[in-house]
Amino acid sequence: MSGNKFVYDFDEGNAQMRSLLGGKGANLAEMTNLGLPVPPGFTITTEACNAYVNAGDEYPAGLLDEVTDHLAGLESKMGKKLGEPRDPLLVSVRSGAAFSMPGMMDTILNLGLNDESVKGLAALTGDERFAYDSYRRFIQMFGNVVLEIDKDHFERALTEMKEARGAKSDTDLSAGDLKELVDTFKRIVKDQTGSDFPTAPSDQLDMSIRAVFRSWNNPRAKTYRKLNDIPDDLGTAVNVQTMVFGNKGDDCATGVAFTRDPSTGERVLYGEYLTNAQGEDVVSGVRTPRPIAKLADEMPEAYGQLAETMNKLEEHYREMQDIEFTIEQSTLYMLQCRTGKRTAAAALKIAVDMVAEGLITKDDAVLRIDPGQLDQLLHPQLDPKVGVDVLATGLPASPGAAVGRVVFDADTAEEKGNAGEKVILTRWETTPDDIHGVVAAQGIVTSHGGMTSHAAVVARGMGKPCVCGVEAVKIDMDSRLFTVDGTTIREGDVITIDGATGRVMVGEIALIPPAVSEDFKQILVWADERRRLGVRTNSDTPEDSVRAREFGAEGIGLCRTEHMFMAEDRIPHVRAMILAESEEERARALEHLLPMQRGDFEGIFTAMDGLPVTIRLLDPPLHEFLPSLADVRVELTEMKLRGADASVVAAQEELLGKVRAQAEANPMLGLRGCRLGLRYPEIYMMQVRAIIEAACNAKKRGVEPVVEIMIPLVATAKELEILRGRTEEVASQVLAANGDRISFKIGTMIELPRAALTADEIAEHAEFFSFGTNDLTQTTFGFSRDDAEGKFLPQYLEQHVLDENPFEVLDVGGVGKLVDMACKLGRATRPDIKLGVCGEHGGEAKSIAFCHEVGLTYVSCSPFRVPLARLAAAQAALGGTTRDK
Amino acid sequence: MSGNKFVYDFDEGNAQMRSLLGGKGANLAEMTNLGLPVPPGFTITTEACNAYVNAGDEYPAGLLDEVTDHLAGLESKMGKKLGEPRDPLLVSVRSGAAFSMPGMMDTILNLGLNDESVKGLAALTGDERFAYDSYRRFIQMFGNVVLEIDKDHFERALTEMKEARGAKSDTDLSAGDLKELVDTFKRIVKDQTGSDFPTAPSDQLDMSIRAVFRSWNNPRAKTYRKLNDIPDDLGTAVNVQTMVFGNKGDDCATGVAFTRDPSTGERVLYGEYLTNAQGEDVVSGVRTPRPIAKLADEMPEAYGQLAETMNKLEEHYREMQDIEFTIEQSTLYMLQCRTGKRTAAAALKIAVDMVAEGLITKDDAVLRIDPGQLDQLLHPQLDPKVGVDVLATGLPASPGAAVGRVVFDADTAEEKGNAGEKVILTRWETTPDDIHGVVAAQGIVTSHGGMTSHAAVVARGMGKPCVCGVEAVKIDMDSRLFTVDGTTIREGDVITIDGATGRVMVGEIALIPPAVSEDFKQILVWADERRRLGVRTNSDTPEDSVRAREFGAEGIGLCRTEHMFMAEDRIPHVRAMILAESEEERARALEHLLPMQRGDFEGIFTAMDGLPVTIRLLDPPLHEFLPSLADVRVELTEMKLRGADASVVAAQEELLGKVRAQAEANPMLGLRGCRLGLRYPEIYMMQVRAIIEAACNAKKRGVEPVVEIMIPLVATAKELEILRGRTEEVASQVLAANGDRISFKIGTMIELPRAALTADEIAEHAEFFSFGTNDLTQTTFGFSRDDAEGKFLPQYLEQHVLDENPFEVLDVGGVGKLVDMACKLGRATRPDIKLGVCGEHGGEAKSIAFCHEVGLTYVSCSPFRVPLARLAAAQAALGGTTRDK
Repeated sequence: MSGNKFVYDFDEGNAQMRSLLGGKGANLAEMTNLGLPVPPGFTITTEACNAYVNAGDEYPAGLLDEVTDHLAGLESKMGKKLGEPRDPLLVSVRSGAAFSMPGMMDTILNLGLNDESVKGLAALTGDERFAYDSYRRFIQMFGNVVLEIDKDHFERALTEMKEARGAKSDTDLSAGDLKELVDTFKRIVKDQTGSDFPTAPSDQLDMSIRAVFRSWNNPRAKTYRKLNDIPDDLGTAVNVQTMVFGNKGDDCATGVAFTRDPSTGERVLYGEYLTNAQGEDVVSGVRTPRPIAKLADEMPEAYGQLAETMNKLEEHYREMQDIEFTIEQSTLYMLQCRTGKRTAAAALKIAVDMVAEGLITKDDAVLRIDPGQLDQLLHPQLDPKVGVDVLATGLPASPGAAVGRVVFDADTAEEKGNAGEKVILTRWETTPDDIHGVVAAQGIVTSHGGMTSHAAVVARGMGKPCVCGVEAVKIDMDSRLFTVDGTTIREGDVITIDGATGRVMVGEIALIPPAVSEDFKQILVWADERRRLGVRTNSDTPEDSVRAREFGAEGIGLCRTEHMFMAEDRIPHVRAMILAESEEERARALEHLLPMQRGDFEGIFTAMDGLPVTIRLLDPPLHEFLPSLADVRVELTEMKLRGADASVVAAQEELLGKVRAQAEANPMLGLRGCRLGLRYPEIYMMQVRAIIEAACNAKKRGVEPVVEIMIPLVATAKELEILRGRTEEVASQVLAANGDRISFKIGTMIELPRAALTADEIAEHAEFFSFGTNDLTQTTFGFSRDDAEGKFLPQYLEQHVLDENPFEVLDVGGVGKLVDMACKLGRATRPDIKLGVCGEHGGEAKSIAFCHEVGLTYVSCSPFRVPLARLAAAQAALGGTTRDK
Repeated sequence: MSGNKFVYDFDEGNAQMRSLLGGKGANLAEMTNLGLPVPPGFTITTEACNAYVNAGDEYPAGLLDEVTDHLAGLESKMGKKLGEPRDPLLVSVRSGAAFSMPGMMDTILNLGLNDESVKGLAALTGDERFAYDSYRRFIQMFGNVVLEIDKDHFERALTEMKEARGAKSDTDLSAGDLKELVDTFKRIVKDQTGSDFPTAPSDQLDMSIRAVFRSWNNPRAKTYRKLNDIPDDLGTAVNVQTMVFGNKGDDCATGVAFTRDPSTGERVLYGEYLTNAQGEDVVSGVRTPRPIAKLADEMPEAYGQLAETMNKLEEHYREMQDIEFTIEQSTLYMLQCRTGKRTAAAALKIAVDMVAEGLITKDDAVLRIDPGQLDQLLHPQLDPKVGVDVLATGLPASPGAAVGRVVFDADTAEEKGNAGEKVILTRWETTPDDIHGVVAAQGIVTSHGGMTSHAAVVARGMGKPCVCGVEAVKIDMDSRLFTVDGTTIREGDVITIDGATGRVMVGEIALIPPAVSEDFKQILVWADERRRLGVRTNSDTPEDSVRAREFGAEGIGLCRTEHMFMAEDRIPHVRAMILAESEEERARALEHLLPMQRGDFEGIFTAMDGLPVTIRLLDPPLHEFLPSLADVRVELTEMKLRGADASVVAAQEELLGKVRAQAEANPMLGLRGCRLGLRYPEIYMMQVRAIIEAACNAKKRGVEPVVEIMIPLVATAKELEILRGRTEEVASQVLAANGDRISFKIGTMIELPRAALTADEIAEHAEFFSFGTNDLTQTTFGFSRDDAEGKFLPQYLEQHVLDENPFEVLDVGGVGKLVDMACKLGRATRPDIKLGVCGEHGGEAKSIAFCHEVGLTYVSCSPFRVPLARLAAAQAALGGTTRDK
């Protein structure tokens, strides 16, 4: 708390006072002090807002007096009084939090007008039409945002008036028309609220300030904060500023502009404006604004002033700026400036250009890119060369674009998906019952639900594109179709969705695979020079390995061998191995798998020539390779009732027995990982043999294999000790047989709390640890990811029980505590131990920052996330980001 | 290491040198120094054994010389030389580890005899029969235990000789017969080993010492050590002692005796002896020994000497002693003394009596009882008034007695068990496939497998009686019967088993419920005076609560409300609640359950009048109350194929949909505990209402309810914060409606790693923690108990991956670390927080010691374990036990 001062004149603040004055107020102060043409005013602090909210909507002591004092100061500076009948001071009132936040109350213009002062304004300007236009706008905005009257009431009255007068545009209405409209608007206020429109300027100001404070906690604002990790206790500031008018005539204008193109990053003045208009006309779309370049022709002097001012701002802030301006009778006024939002591609270009221009350092450039935003560029995207007609827009719930046929239920999605068709599951909203459909679909659309809805959480978890809450989509399940404003889409019709922007399009739109632009590459070169963390990839195939290497992966942190078991030509051998009645039978089945695995490994070693490849021995429970118990039982019932052959029934019964013997109550916590390796030693030994033989073969071909063998799901040092011994034994045999010497490391996953807690003991037998933070999160929280994301995590996020999905962002307070502990214990035993993370967190920026802090050696993530991880690692090394600061 | 001294004469040692000299050697030394008549000898240390084993069966440097020196010393003391032809020194060689260990090589007597020295012995004693009897015994023992020849070869030859001579007993054989037998025995040795029987006494001694050393690592000894937590690196000592002879004539005898009755604890000289016999005759059962009291008639002087010596020993050791003695020509010799094993009942009586006699303190008495042994007394037992005919004996794998009909497979067990029949599942051994049968059975018998076999581990986990490895039982699955030495038991026949002793009996034998004797009560009174830990019980019914209170429970630490939902008359309402389509429908179902729960709670408050009752709100996943997904699918398939009515099929399909929606991949980690409470607030609120209403009702009847409400499965402080708020709200409403004031505590289970790691935050909202160490063990290890005990834990114990089943004995190194951390964090936030444990570990002695160490407030366990817990808590407070020290 900065004492009791709740109100600051613009010339009392600066850009650093953002948390106290809000972004808008701080920048108005900064511009004022830069000598730019900012209409005078003052800012009520965020602390005042918090005090107001905490006191149950009461002004804190002193606030009212301070507002009165600062208003008096402003009045004396302007030589006018607020709403004074003859020459009224008029002000705007705007909210402005430290972070830009849609959903809060935005703007009230022309405050101070009433039936008396409007006459003074008319007399003073000699423009009655302007005065009444300003007055009706004020009532309209105040009625809507302060008094919470549905804006349709005002729009309808305006439309009726225009129709009655045969007017095409607002500007065609006369002063008399507008005066009549003022009366209509005042009647609307009376009808809707039961009270007269407040005429006292001090009441108007008081009510507006309170409305801004209240809007901090309206539902949309709260949701936005939750989604963007903005704390609830920041509060919003209130800016009270002298009005200037862009609607006083044809030498007036208002507009918005960027110092560079926010979609490409190109260095051109970019924006749009309207002549003879007020700010909200530009946004409302009632009139079509013109591109900013036209202003150079229309008002060359003002344009020159604007261009110069924007140059000055960018040089001052060393950042691309987004500004609002008004030109009142050829004089330029600056009403707002802020760091401009931009696409990922623009962000990269601007950062690279600004370094070339000497505006910022390479460190700055690296710190300015939001790794999360890069995700846009690293999923399949709509081909930007193809124009799209957007059918409807919803929330961008999970990035990436997808094309598929519309299906309306999960069973159909599963059926068609399993048959190889691409489908988009389209639902009112999804429930746990729909999971099998989500799995089978290319993407998800829901007409209901927000960024933390079931569909959104599940899709993000699976990395599938998802657009949520597309309210325009009206689903008719009986007719198996949906409509959007008269367009009908039937089940089976093809649509395209873009989860990064929330757009839904009809038909198939060409997608392009993710690629890395030159700017992107430049930023990554700088990032690589700065990061300490290594970046590896999770890859199970030579193809993925090649791609990941192109993206800059410095090795493989996790190669899952089970995916190799899943191939169609291998499953029969895998099942034979599982169902074997004896060790010999099992050995025979493994003999078939050995050359296949060896081939896989050889391909991967070749792709990663010279870089480390961490291969995890078989991890999942064996029943994952078998049909489900329920399926086998249902089939058996069918066979019996249909009178199948006795021998067929007997075979099915035998299968049932074996499947039942493998079935588990909680497969996540059952016979898998190293437990399998201890129970069926021959499986791991086949894998070790395949790895070492593959390395020998690769080496013979001139490839340099760097082998790391990883034992999964270790809970006790003893498990690792035994399996390490066997691994070394098989490896020596193979090497002796090949007459070769290849050094290799043996390590383990740390993915169970007990492994983390006893990491000192485990490190005696491990040359490296790889934190399996997916499983570690599951066991630390006691959350089965499948069940949690399907059943209760969405509600947990919605109700703020958790601020983030711990499967997406590493839970520093719990899981992170174990990781930190394990790092310290591991290093105490073996100071040079290599420490990595191979859970999905390895590709998430905040989690990567944590990995940097606890001193991991590397992170490993999916190939497409490698660039993101390189950048995030550099930002962590530079001590965090400068975004939104 | 105590330097290089490997051999100690008896007079160089004492009872404190147990780890170096072994129990036998240390006590021989102690008795020697007490002036008791011990035949002279020396002991080779356990360190020598370890050195021998570690060197790959090689004597350590210096050992051979030391043995030679000490043998020379012994020879000079006795005035004889080992195996010297005219007047031979003969010795016994015995193993003796620090802990009594069956399975190791036991005894070689008469070492030093050969074809020459036997003549000297005959000449010297004038008793050729005695000399050759000694010789044939020596060959027999040496052949069996050193040369590892099956003892049947020797027994058969002896039996043939007796038959040929028409002799009833060994003593009927003449000197000539025995001489012939010696030749036969030597031939057996030659036939079986390919070498002649070693005649050089030094070779005999050397081979015997090596055999003792080797026996340390024979499989039975290793298994025994694992079962009894005896480290593998202790080694065994070797005792070489001058022979005395109980078989020189009718003024000779040999026997074993206890200073008190080891089965009742009564203070009488107890034991048995044989005249004219050597030690192994008493044990072998060839002749039936006489009760020790008869010795007073037969050899009054020797008896008097024995009684006096034993009194002296007990006074010296202040413990009941188990001794071996020999009387050679009326002179008493003491060959061994050790603390006597005893039944649990005897242990209690002896401890109480010794306090009365002033021999030991009350602390000693409390410390001397093995809490684990009390388990015998706290399960249903065979009525001791009923004599039993034991059919066969196996390993005592899981205590308690059970009666039931024999069934031979798990499916039959399940079928009959579900039909309400009591069955004993009898298998060669069990596998994970048999679990459903184990669940349905009263007890388990296997003909194969040891104390860590699948059946043993699973049965102990479930608290079911189990007898393992009954090798005499020969199962014939085709005929559905088993035989034991000609007795046939068919499927459906009734048997009784006693898992505490490993006995199997034919027919139904009366069982008695567990009870607490006067001695037991006395020990518990002393224990209560000494312990700091409170002891509560886990109880879900008024009946269990009453019983637990009788056993000394000081409250309820865990009352599981889900068991109340399982009652037959309630399940329909529970299902209606789960399948409800709306909140109203769910509320209606809950209305039915409310009065039932209220009644349960009122009964429990009444039973626990004045003592705290911790009630856990609903914990298990709701699908536990529904039929299984597979069952519903199979039924649906049957309905369809049998052409059932469309409406019936439709209803089943609807049920399938709902069951599928509730189904989970890993129910242990799914929608349960507080997650349920957050998802369906009305369930918890009904329960809170029932609890507070029950407390009000009880109070109106003069009962003092002490209410503690426990929220399960908390992973984050926020979960608890929300549910605590709702609980307080409902409670205030109920109290206001009743016009009553009842204080109550709200707390939580700590059963997830994350809860332990963030216990400081959680403690802000919790007045108590109860460690749910079952679930905490599951998540810390990543072991689903059902799957682990069924699938891999037995193998883990067998292979020493784990030394103990962590679901039985708390894993101090991992789970314990979390418990300790949570205690510290919890107290840091709330210094007066109550800390308890309510997992099964709360009834296990080692785990209780840990709970004492980390400073818990109480442990809570099943009613029958309450006495055990009281004792274990006292021992922990006294700083550990004195057993086996």
